[in-house]
Amino acid sequence: MHFRHISILGVGLLGGSVGMAAKAFVKDVLVTGYGHRTKTLETALEIGAIDRTATTVADAVKDADLVILCTPVGIFPNILSELSQVILPGTVVTDVGSTKRSVVELAEANLPRKVHFVGSHPMAGSEKRGVEFAKPDLFQNALCITTPTPRTDRKALEGVEAFWKSLGMRLTRVSPEDHDRLLADISHLPHAVAAALVAMQDDAGLPLAGKGFLDTTRIAGGDGALWRDILLDNRDNLRASLDRLKKQLTQFQKLLTSKRGDELTEWLNRAAGRREDLLRQKLREVNPD
Amino acid sequence: MHFRHISILGVGLLGGSVGMAAKAFVKDVLVTGYGHRTKTLETALEIGAIDRTATTVADAVKDADLVILCTPVGIFPNILSELSQVILPGTVVTDVGSTKRSVVELAEANLPRKVHFVGSHPMAGSEKRGVEFAKPDLFQNALCITTPTPRTDRKALEGVEAFWKSLGMRLTRVSPEDHDRLLADISHLPHAVAAALVAMQDDAGLPLAGKGFLDTTRIAGGDGALWRDILLDNRDNLRASLDRLKKQLTQFQKLLTSKRGDELTEWLNRAAGRREDLLRQKLREVNPD
Repeated sequence: MHFRHISILGVGLLGGSVGMAAKAFVKDVLVTGYGHRTKTLETALEIGAIDRTATTVADAVKDADLVILCTPVGIFPNILSELSQVILPGTVVTDVGSTKRSVVELAEANLPRKVHFVGSHPMAGSEKRGVEFAKPDLFQNALCITTPTPRTDRKALEGVEAFWKSLGMRLTRVSPEDHDRLLADISHLPHAVAAALVAMQDDAGLPLAGKGFLDTTRIAGGDGALWRDILLDNRDNLRASLDRLKKQLTQFQKLLTSKRGDELTEWLNRAAGRREDLLRQKLREVNPD
Repeated sequence: MHFRHISILGVGLLGGSVGMAAKAFVKDVLVTGYGHRTKTLETALEIGAIDRTATTVADAVKDADLVILCTPVGIFPNILSELSQVILPGTVVTDVGSTKRSVVELAEANLPRKVHFVGSHPMAGSEKRGVEFAKPDLFQNALCITTPTPRTDRKALEGVEAFWKSLGMRLTRVSPEDHDRLLADISHLPHAVAAALVAMQDDAGLPLAGKGFLDTTRIAGGDGALWRDILLDNRDNLRASLDRLKKQLTQFQKLLTSKRGDELTEWLNRAAGRREDLLRQKLREVNPD
């Protein structure tokens, strides 16, 4: 399954980067971009993120063999309902959303039977926003999670995975439920915590911030509306993650009461070691040799 | 007040970097290094972090005009009590500790009257450990907090500040109490939270970590024993910081219950904006033009 005409619905930083990367790394591909703002589509054309623009969803997808939903997660219900009216049998549809249960469920419930949906979460992005920050190498060496279900068409799944691979990504498969539960801990919770760490600071303390504080809170710099969609869509898991973190912090407070602090040292070293292992693993993935 | 013979007690990453920077940026200076491990002192000599070694505190400080405590915070009580037996009148003493109330109090209580102590916290460091990672530019553009009290000798304070400035640092003055309270929020709490975020992860989730998670938890990579000293020394403030963060997280959980999430968006954007302001401020400090 080789996609020759890709339609990108929502041409922001991610959608634009998908277009640029497809045009850079996939042979003989045509990229159509659809979005609400004419200005954004014009910029996308200018910087070579797309080959042509469409002003309706129907026009955007009528000849496409791969449709990629690149709008914020909160727009997925509307766009899937619009898409389901106009999309032709045989088309493959995927997305780039940071949550997977809701989009997979909606797609499987709403899209016509011969349209094949594959949930994708390419884990690449930026705190920046807008197609002007799109870049073709955004996906290089990053991880893409696909979330097949028993209803997922295997050929479509393999085709979508091959597409992300051609953009430079590594791939892994996880169920939509596991995806949302694990991502709550490893991505959505850190985002919330980073924002909370910024929010709780005294004005007098901020000028004393060092590089450590800036790194720890970097992800809090993202776009609020985009993250609202993600956090609300995964709120049940995120609530449980927050409860577990608060418990962990309460345990840590108990470690502070001991006089010698051997347990505290151990706890800190265990966290440091675990992160070190993770970092080594990540480096191996990027440089296998 | 120009220091011509600097004695560094504790030649690790920080002490070694102080030596290297002094030798690089201060004219006609002699640097003596003192530490428990002969191997470390030999390495420090080899890489040019110090000019000569001393095997006792008495020997290390007898001709020095500036003594800098660079051991872990937990060693300060012992080293100050040793120092108070041997140090000569007129010597200036400072330190590089990440907490300030305890060391200032101990120094003012224990050092002889004509020895002038100035609390310093040069906010530079690394997750790495050991003199082999020392570097002369560690302090460039970083902030050094001095913590004078009514008992601090003004000439000594100005001399110590001029020394840090000559190493490339920016300076600010805060009381020891304010220092520890503000640093609990902006440095010690983020460290604890980063470690807790690593500690609470499911093994299945870690491989899904992206760059965001690695950045957020970078500071958790530090040396456990060093951080134990800091966290225990500032435990009262840190406990209060943790309570406030947990409250902030509980408020955030409430924002997750609303359907539309306008308040959540606002909260996220406020945090993002505040961090953006901080980043701009930091960039202005480094590049004033």
